[in-house]
Amino acid sequence: MKSYDVIIIGAGPSGIVAGITSRKRNPDKSFLMIMEEEKGLVPCGIPYIFHDLEDISQNSMGPAPFVNAGGEVLIDTVTNIDIGSKVLQTESGKSISYGKLVFATGSTPIIPIFIKGYDLENVEYIAKSYKYINGLMDRIRSAVNIVVIGGGFIGAEVAEQLAKHRDKNVTLIEKENHCLYRAFSADFATLADKHLRNAGVNVLTGCTVKELEGSSGKIESVLLVDGRSIKADLVISAIGYKPCTELAARAGLHLTSNGTIRVDKYMRTEEQDVYAIGDCSQTSGFITGRTDNIMLASTATAEARILGNNLFSISLLRTFSGTLSVFSTELDGYVFASAGAIEQSALEANVDYVVGRFEDVDRHPGSLPGAKKIIIKIIVSPENGEIIGGEIYGGKSVGEMINIIGLAIQKYVTIYEMISFQTGTHPLLTTAPTKYALVKACENAISNIEKQAGK
Amino acid sequence: MKSYDVIIIGAGPSGIVAGITSRKRNPDKSFLMIMEEEKGLVPCGIPYIFHDLEDISQNSMGPAPFVNAGGEVLIDTVTNIDIGSKVLQTESGKSISYGKLVFATGSTPIIPIFIKGYDLENVEYIAKSYKYINGLMDRIRSAVNIVVIGGGFIGAEVAEQLAKHRDKNVTLIEKENHCLYRAFSADFATLADKHLRNAGVNVLTGCTVKELEGSSGKIESVLLVDGRSIKADLVISAIGYKPCTELAARAGLHLTSNGTIRVDKYMRTEEQDVYAIGDCSQTSGFITGRTDNIMLASTATAEARILGNNLFSISLLRTFSGTLSVFSTELDGYVFASAGAIEQSALEANVDYVVGRFEDVDRHPGSLPGAKKIIIKIIVSPENGEIIGGEIYGGKSVGEMINIIGLAIQKYVTIYEMISFQTGTHPLLTTAPTKYALVKACENAISNIEKQAGK
Repeated sequence: MKSYDVIIIGAGPSGIVAGITSRKRNPDKSFLMIMEEEKGLVPCGIPYIFHDLEDISQNSMGPAPFVNAGGEVLIDTVTNIDIGSKVLQTESGKSISYGKLVFATGSTPIIPIFIKGYDLENVEYIAKSYKYINGLMDRIRSAVNIVVIGGGFIGAEVAEQLAKHRDKNVTLIEKENHCLYRAFSADFATLADKHLRNAGVNVLTGCTVKELEGSSGKIESVLLVDGRSIKADLVISAIGYKPCTELAARAGLHLTSNGTIRVDKYMRTEEQDVYAIGDCSQTSGFITGRTDNIMLASTATAEARILGNNLFSISLLRTFSGTLSVFSTELDGYVFASAGAIEQSALEANVDYVVGRFEDVDRHPGSLPGAKKIIIKIIVSPENGEIIGGEIYGGKSVGEMINIIGLAIQKYVTIYEMISFQTGTHPLLTTAPTKYALVKACENAISNIEKQAGK
Repeated sequence: MKSYDVIIIGAGPSGIVAGITSRKRNPDKSFLMIMEEEKGLVPCGIPYIFHDLEDISQNSMGPAPFVNAGGEVLIDTVTNIDIGSKVLQTESGKSISYGKLVFATGSTPIIPIFIKGYDLENVEYIAKSYKYINGLMDRIRSAVNIVVIGGGFIGAEVAEQLAKHRDKNVTLIEKENHCLYRAFSADFATLADKHLRNAGVNVLTGCTVKELEGSSGKIESVLLVDGRSIKADLVISAIGYKPCTELAARAGLHLTSNGTIRVDKYMRTEEQDVYAIGDCSQTSGFITGRTDNIMLASTATAEARILGNNLFSISLLRTFSGTLSVFSTELDGYVFASAGAIEQSALEANVDYVVGRFEDVDRHPGSLPGAKKIIIKIIVSPENGEIIGGEIYGGKSVGEMINIIGLAIQKYVTIYEMISFQTGTHPLLTTAPTKYALVKACENAISNIEKQAGK
């Protein structure tokens, strides 16, 4: 029986990063990565296959960096694991023993089995599978009326990309009042709706799907609870993802109520020498401390680096405790980004907060070509002024600007410190130094705290 | 005699921000700002007047926000100050008394009096004066052969903008081996030279001007030490700025050896109730602790916010001690940015350091339209892994990405923490989450520290 010091199940971002990081630190150890398909996809790049990238091969992601680091790869599916004897079996009949086992099994689209007609032909998903997406591309090519269900990031991005094909009618159905409602407060999410419409998407918010209707087993229309019916040759359901943890559960690992594998802050499961990272593993909210279910390649790779550096001994202390969600997207040429708490998530988690807000243009003077409006909103603890969240709307620069707020949250920076934050500013690149947007939002938050205190 | 609680001399970025901030906090106090010209300019926007903005009026900056906050403005020049009796005189014959006095007198181009011919007609400067720049615009319009002396930020940006006029021959002369040599290490500065050349600028590095030659009192050519002569209808000298502190010196304030007004960390001079901010005031290096001479609108406005919040009582502690220079510019569509220490400044200041470096593209997959190469280099203390500097080259996103490094330096973030930094990433906006460039540069720095230690 073949044996490896480390076996990683899954070759998504977290599996690959954990493999590379750990193998580089432990060149004397043998590593195997088991992946189900030969070719992988950059997960967050999938929506862009449908227009901007033109070709699926432009979005492929393989295990080459892991192999270059000295790891081995097996294309197979793990069917069974015996945690006690440290042996796993695969679909092709192999038995392989391991010293340490890493679950990086990711997540899979939620199938809307609660909607009648979900099993009709041409009701599809954004699965993170090369083969699957390749097949979906063909269905998209021959479809004219496409309905996307779910206005989260994936649904909004897919709809925006599909609408760039001028020969298609694209409808996006979101049950909440606005798209992106989990990551943005209402004023920002309203802008997201606006930009999606401007990009040619027929956005229907506050609408619930009652039934998927078809004939001869194929989708023909989407019936809403309000009685409207929308013609559809193709439906793409993007209502979320669930962790792939059946294998882990069968192996006897403990799951959280969200279905993720229970782990501690070093990504260790409750079983000796078994670890879990990425979408399949438990996360714990940075602000709230609650078990949640953040599924982001960026946080998955941060977990993977923690694991990779500490797999054989704890050598790199985890200093940022808790998972901080930092989101960004671009719709219709405008960027939306958020980090940490937003108003509704703070309210839900019973977190006291004050808001600071500022609007400007992202160049100075604003008359420079290409200048775009920028809106920044920060969420602040009124007790000590710590920044616990933020949202930004604007041009391309927002994609990295949100990481300033992300770092500020992770390092417990206060608005009182941020007032004298020394920044780099440039006419062609940022807001003006006299009113650097993040600093002005902090000033506004200070005013609001003083107002609350009746000063 | 008129009297004000606060008089601010100067209406550049620091004067305006100090005025607004302080007046908002102290609405019962009377504020006067004395400015020499009615219209001001966004200082860092001046190079863009010469092409991208097309019109000087697009780059004007006035005291309106200060006036809206309840401040008064006087167009006049202060000629004398009696610190003892707290009275100043102006050119127009006014005597005004003050409770607190703020010097925000800025800086002025260094005149190369050590170069023969410096006083010829059409040897000009980038002075921060609306009237002056308006006049310079006329001279630029009628010039064909323009020579810019000095390849710092202002010289490089002015040359790049002028070269966009295809009917002009623009030469940039830099005495060091590369342009931008003070803010970037040789590999980055080499790229700056390359992009300036690509933008149509005739870049001559390692060249010293011997003499400015003319006839009938007007410039005709620039003679280099190596014997070459460059035809010139117009010379723009951009060899640096000096603080405007003659008035302060005459009033008896102490100056540093750099000619700046001595101040403490709350921007107080050695005289009671007299303050100085911005280019005219002393700065103390964040890393080195040395008195230096950083002249940036961004650091000036940070000083102004410190002063504005603490003018009548210390209510907002200064937490970032020392001035951190964060630079950014765009040349030929590529962005160059740096923060804190670079290799040569660390060497000069006898600071131990290790480098971490990473190259990638600023989108993922890199095949996305508009993707640009990105290079990031960080400078790290080998003792504890604190990030003390960084340089980035790439697309527009670099303009805000450098502020992540800036915040990391100001908050003493280590590379060991940064390894698990949770970021927002997006295909259209950032490097990939599997290899977020800043995190990878930190990993590389850790490897280099381990190599140094012989691990």
